[in-house]
Amino acid sequence: MIVVMKPGADKDHVDHVVKLVREFGLRDHVIYGTDRTVVACIGDKRSVDKGAIENAPMVERIVPILSPYKMASTEVKRERTQVEIGPLQFALGGEKVGIIAGPCAVESREQLLRIADAVKAAGCVGLRGGAFKPRTSPYSFQGMREEGLKLLAEARDRTGLAVVTEVTGLETIDAVVEYADVLQVGARNMQHYPLLESLGKVGKPVMLKRGMSAKLDEWLLAAEYIIDAGNPRVILCERGIRTYEEYVRFTLPLTVVPELRERTHLPVVVDPSHGTGHAHLVPAMSRAAVAAGADGLLIEAHPDPEHAASDGAQSIDPKSLGELVKSLRKVAQAVGREL
Amino acid sequence: MIVVMKPGADKDHVDHVVKLVREFGLRDHVIYGTDRTVVACIGDKRSVDKGAIENAPMVERIVPILSPYKMASTEVKRERTQVEIGPLQFALGGEKVGIIAGPCAVESREQLLRIADAVKAAGCVGLRGGAFKPRTSPYSFQGMREEGLKLLAEARDRTGLAVVTEVTGLETIDAVVEYADVLQVGARNMQHYPLLESLGKVGKPVMLKRGMSAKLDEWLLAAEYIIDAGNPRVILCERGIRTYEEYVRFTLPLTVVPELRERTHLPVVVDPSHGTGHAHLVPAMSRAAVAAGADGLLIEAHPDPEHAASDGAQSIDPKSLGELVKSLRKVAQAVGREL
Amino acid sequence: MIVVMKPGADKDHVDHVVKLVREFGLRDHVIYGTDRTVVACIGDKRSVDKGAIENAPMVERIVPILSPYKMASTEVKRERTQVEIGPLQFALGGEKVGIIAGPCAVESREQLLRIADAVKAAGCVGLRGGAFKPRTSPYSFQGMREEGLKLLAEARDRTGLAVVTEVTGLETIDAVVEYADVLQVGARNMQHYPLLESLGKVGKPVMLKRGMSAKLDEWLLAAEYIIDAGNPRVILCERGIRTYEEYVRFTLPLTVVPELRERTHLPVVVDPSHGTGHAHLVPAMSRAAVAAGADGLLIEAHPDPEHAASDGAQSIDPKSLGELVKSLRKVAQAVGREL
Amino acid sequence: MIVVMKPGADKDHVDHVVKLVREFGLRDHVIYGTDRTVVACIGDKRSVDKGAIENAPMVERIVPILSPYKMASTEVKRERTQVEIGPLQFALGGEKVGIIAGPCAVESREQLLRIADAVKAAGCVGLRGGAFKPRTSPYSFQGMREEGLKLLAEARDRTGLAVVTEVTGLETIDAVVEYADVLQVGARNMQHYPLLESLGKVGKPVMLKRGMSAKLDEWLLAAEYIIDAGNPRVILCERGIRTYEEYVRFTLPLTVVPELRERTHLPVVVDPSHGTGHAHLVPAMSRAAVAAGADGLLIEAHPDPEHAASDGAQSIDPKSLGELVKSLRKVAQAVGREL
Repeated sequence: MIVVMKPGADKDHVDHVVKLVREFGLRDHVIYGTDRTVVACIGDKRSVDKGAIENAPMVERIVPILSPYKMASTEVKRERTQVEIGPLQFALGGEKVGIIAGPCAVESREQLLRIADAVKAAGCVGLRGGAFKPRTSPYSFQGMREEGLKLLAEARDRTGLAVVTEVTGLETIDAVVEYADVLQVGARNMQHYPLLESLGKVGKPVMLKRGMSAKLDEWLLAAEYIIDAGNPRVILCERGIRTYEEYVRFTLPLTVVPELRERTHLPVVVDPSHGTGHAHLVPAMSRAAVAAGADGLLIEAHPDPEHAASDGAQSIDPKSLGELVKSLRKVAQAVGREL
Repeated sequence: MIVVMKPGADKDHVDHVVKLVREFGLRDHVIYGTDRTVVACIGDKRSVDKGAIENAPMVERIVPILSPYKMASTEVKRERTQVEIGPLQFALGGEKVGIIAGPCAVESREQLLRIADAVKAAGCVGLRGGAFKPRTSPYSFQGMREEGLKLLAEARDRTGLAVVTEVTGLETIDAVVEYADVLQVGARNMQHYPLLESLGKVGKPVMLKRGMSAKLDEWLLAAEYIIDAGNPRVILCERGIRTYEEYVRFTLPLTVVPELRERTHLPVVVDPSHGTGHAHLVPAMSRAAVAAGADGLLIEAHPDPEHAASDGAQSIDPKSLGELVKSLRKVAQAVGREL
Repeated sequence: MIVVMKPGADKDHVDHVVKLVREFGLRDHVIYGTDRTVVACIGDKRSVDKGAIENAPMVERIVPILSPYKMASTEVKRERTQVEIGPLQFALGGEKVGIIAGPCAVESREQLLRIADAVKAAGCVGLRGGAFKPRTSPYSFQGMREEGLKLLAEARDRTGLAVVTEVTGLETIDAVVEYADVLQVGARNMQHYPLLESLGKVGKPVMLKRGMSAKLDEWLLAAEYIIDAGNPRVILCERGIRTYEEYVRFTLPLTVVPELRERTHLPVVVDPSHGTGHAHLVPAMSRAAVAAGADGLLIEAHPDPEHAASDGAQSIDPKSLGELVKSLRKVAQAVGREL
Repeated sequence: MIVVMKPGADKDHVDHVVKLVREFGLRDHVIYGTDRTVVACIGDKRSVDKGAIENAPMVERIVPILSPYKMASTEVKRERTQVEIGPLQFALGGEKVGIIAGPCAVESREQLLRIADAVKAAGCVGLRGGAFKPRTSPYSFQGMREEGLKLLAEARDRTGLAVVTEVTGLETIDAVVEYADVLQVGARNMQHYPLLESLGKVGKPVMLKRGMSAKLDEWLLAAEYIIDAGNPRVILCERGIRTYEEYVRFTLPLTVVPELRERTHLPVVVDPSHGTGHAHLVPAMSRAAVAAGADGLLIEAHPDPEHAASDGAQSIDPKSLGELVKSLRKVAQAVGREL
């Protein structure tokens, strides 16, 4: 951590900061520059609230140096984490790129089994589908709940696909753990810490979606909550961020894929459906995500998108899914991977 | 809802859309323009997933017309809602502007009582203070929890201030309801729907902070969850949004204050501390918020900001708080209100 | 400037950075922390491209310490700059708050004189109005050009108001300088450097609007271009930034007002018309801007907003302007200023 | 265009709007819904300022239906525009993907020829390099100007590469036209309309970079200015947008690639160097851009990035460029194109 003093700060101001720094258990190192004085603070600063020092007289700002997460970081673990999912133990984060597809919400047995068969036939490794649905409006379809979970389990038994479904709160963890292979934390819950801590005590992989305006540090700290509580099997899922762009539901910043590869050992999956909001943009962005190095994709597919109960605009149909996976296979090979 | 067809859409495409519209229980009204055909859909469309229609052939986009919320809207209730808080039943949303101040976190009995006395002396009506702290990092101070709640209650008994404190999840509602006067929902929980629904069943006012990238519709729909579940005493709190600006922790968009006055009958409070992130910006933005028509302010104040366990950078000390409230009194009068 | 090395950087990597730092004419100061090594660089670094060093092996990032501007900074000049405008030499940046109002575009002699009289009667000090209009679409009204300038000059002679009008490019500077009192640089030209340099050689004040996604440093560097070229009479005008918010044309971040007061000695004016995009939001945000400490306001007013050739949605009519200025007078007094 | 009335609007309000609509030369079509009345306006509305109507009593908002651009639109021209560049007449927008690479700025003859040879050897089709440099700070290196142009021409003669270089204002058009093959308009000049109009009268292709917070409509309208003034050879270049993300210089939204393919017939090029700001992210994002369907790339390459006079952090060296182009060839083939 570096404390930057304002121009005009005198020795007393600097001494005061040095005193504060030492109170926090850090060592100080004062550098007098041409125009500014800075106080470099040495030691493990993760538990210190740096803001406190910013309030001292003549302090301009605080510059953190260390990343705030540890266990999610490549500083602590260099080799990549592979998270095995589903009955076939597909390893996300390994050589192969894994495609997970399925409807936004489980709507009926017939709908789910039809799309599950198509997902399997296309060559995917996982089936997504919401049983508990966190909806922006209290008047929207809220999901089939426990019954939806049972249908997902039936689809898994039939196809061998790994079931990925959302856990919306503490009160639904037990039910979801019983039926699902991967517990998804939605973007809106990325910083719901009681949930993260509870998922740290669960023996199944967790797919942690990025909050729609989360910074990378915040996202990795959310992963850290889960790992710190005992569950190292965390998969990160980029699903688009909120920007001024209005022709998309969210802006999909694929740069996170190579950047996270530098910062963390965790597998990174991309959701081009929420990440764009429109079915016509999904194929190109799926290909781009794989070319950027993503370990997997999470795609919304529905047997009849025009009649989907939710997210119809961004769902693709079985035929499009089949063609898309075919093209993704080529892109994966072009960047030295398989699918 | 208006369905805009792509250029080149022919009668079959339009007929298909009309069929879908009718399936959704809406009446249709087709308008053939010079370059485009649009299908106006008439009826209450709040429960329909409009995305589904976007996936029909030759549909360009869907334009919603109605606001998605009802009970939070001035369309349904014109007179302003006044929410009475604390032992003195101060009415937020009424003529008077109410200032709520206090530390980010309860750290000790001595810290809390010192600041509570200062908050009271300055002329504020409420005491804020976190007992359960949702922290970005698992390594940060997580709050005094139940013991913190008891200290807050003690401070209320001593000062008459209304106690505002955060409820971080379902599992802490009971404890917080027992001790607090206003249950705060933090920005990161604005869309944690299980929590919102539970707060709808609680007999105390709820202060709902705006999510850091929430749109107004999303925020008002979150309020709608609480009202719909049975609790009409919702206070909205603007606390800054995430933008590209880097000299502030968040950008504080005061335009929400007059805009919400048009859209909703609920009281609107502004948090200039999180809304800027730096103590030196708090006084000017507090004055601006009152001038813009805010019903109240939520300000972080600490007896010794340099040693605050959290949010030290944005906390002001008791002396600054006293001077600030004095100046706010003048601004309130200038815009025809009292404080 | 601080160079932060990656974890694992060894002595050779650090030595290489030190060599680069010295090549750039800076002195180095290496600090070995618990987890990281940083190289503090001492000297005036404004002309060095810090990116170059980031490309050296095992460098994580570069942290600048100094602000990149000089002459616009309070580090160089502590007393506030007052810029006198118009025939009455109103001093922007002084004790009094100055209101400048008028139409988006000059449309006709009758329109301009009507609104000019209303602006004067309301108690404003300046008249805004575009003669050359930079329009997003080539099919929109492009302004009355030179004839518009003459009408503005006539309105000034009649009312004594300072004329503020936009200069859209090098080719129109001469004409605008001849007729206007303040040369406005639009948001879209904030970084058109040939224009900024030319305005540095002109003997009239320049009002520099913030680019719609400019950072404060970029804005102040644009001012620096003008000052550096010889013209110290620069007025900064905040007009809203682009964010994800969709109910406003732009988000108006009033926090710049107190922040710029710390960083620069230049006067700061706020444009609540472009800063919101909707007439119903202008009064509240005007009051908020004055309460935040703005030195002036730039408001769009039109004798008949429903028929305005441009920006009708955000223009207020003469009656609203009169009432607004009356309320602003009270707010100004509440914060210790006059109007 | 649709005019949405507020709830409670009565017949007089609607009649007033209808009168305004007719004054603007449009036909009206009133639809009375369950909760709202809307007035659909029929006719070509591109020259009408829709804001004017928003100011009428009880109007809630205006919803535009038509895209505001014409000649840039696929509505007017379905077949894709191919823009031939340089001595070898490489067709951007055709089957082949074209890579343009080179330094941010021309720094010396030796620097330029070294990198030009490397760019050619790697298999690129164009050489980028700035002679006139628009720099954020007046204290930064401003380019070699006319001498730089001559060096670029020499490099073209030597290699056959198309020269792409920036024209920073009206005053430098003549010089750049004389030496360059493609005239680049920088992001900061995207809405400098005098420049766009002048480039419409020039007989050479124009590469129009997206403004750093431009919406797609604004970008295509900027292209429309050039086409409308007589020059149809416009290439669009995405270079990243400003968002809250802080680990990149800009966020690169590749979704524009498939979206523009729907909206416009113009070729689309991606700049992964400005679009990320860091050399380590350039290869992955280059591959992603090609996979998304980009017609070309614009990459910053420097013989010695550590000593680059500008943009060193985002420049890659000749060896990396060679390897990158090799991998791009595979990705292009995977998506059915060549390089």
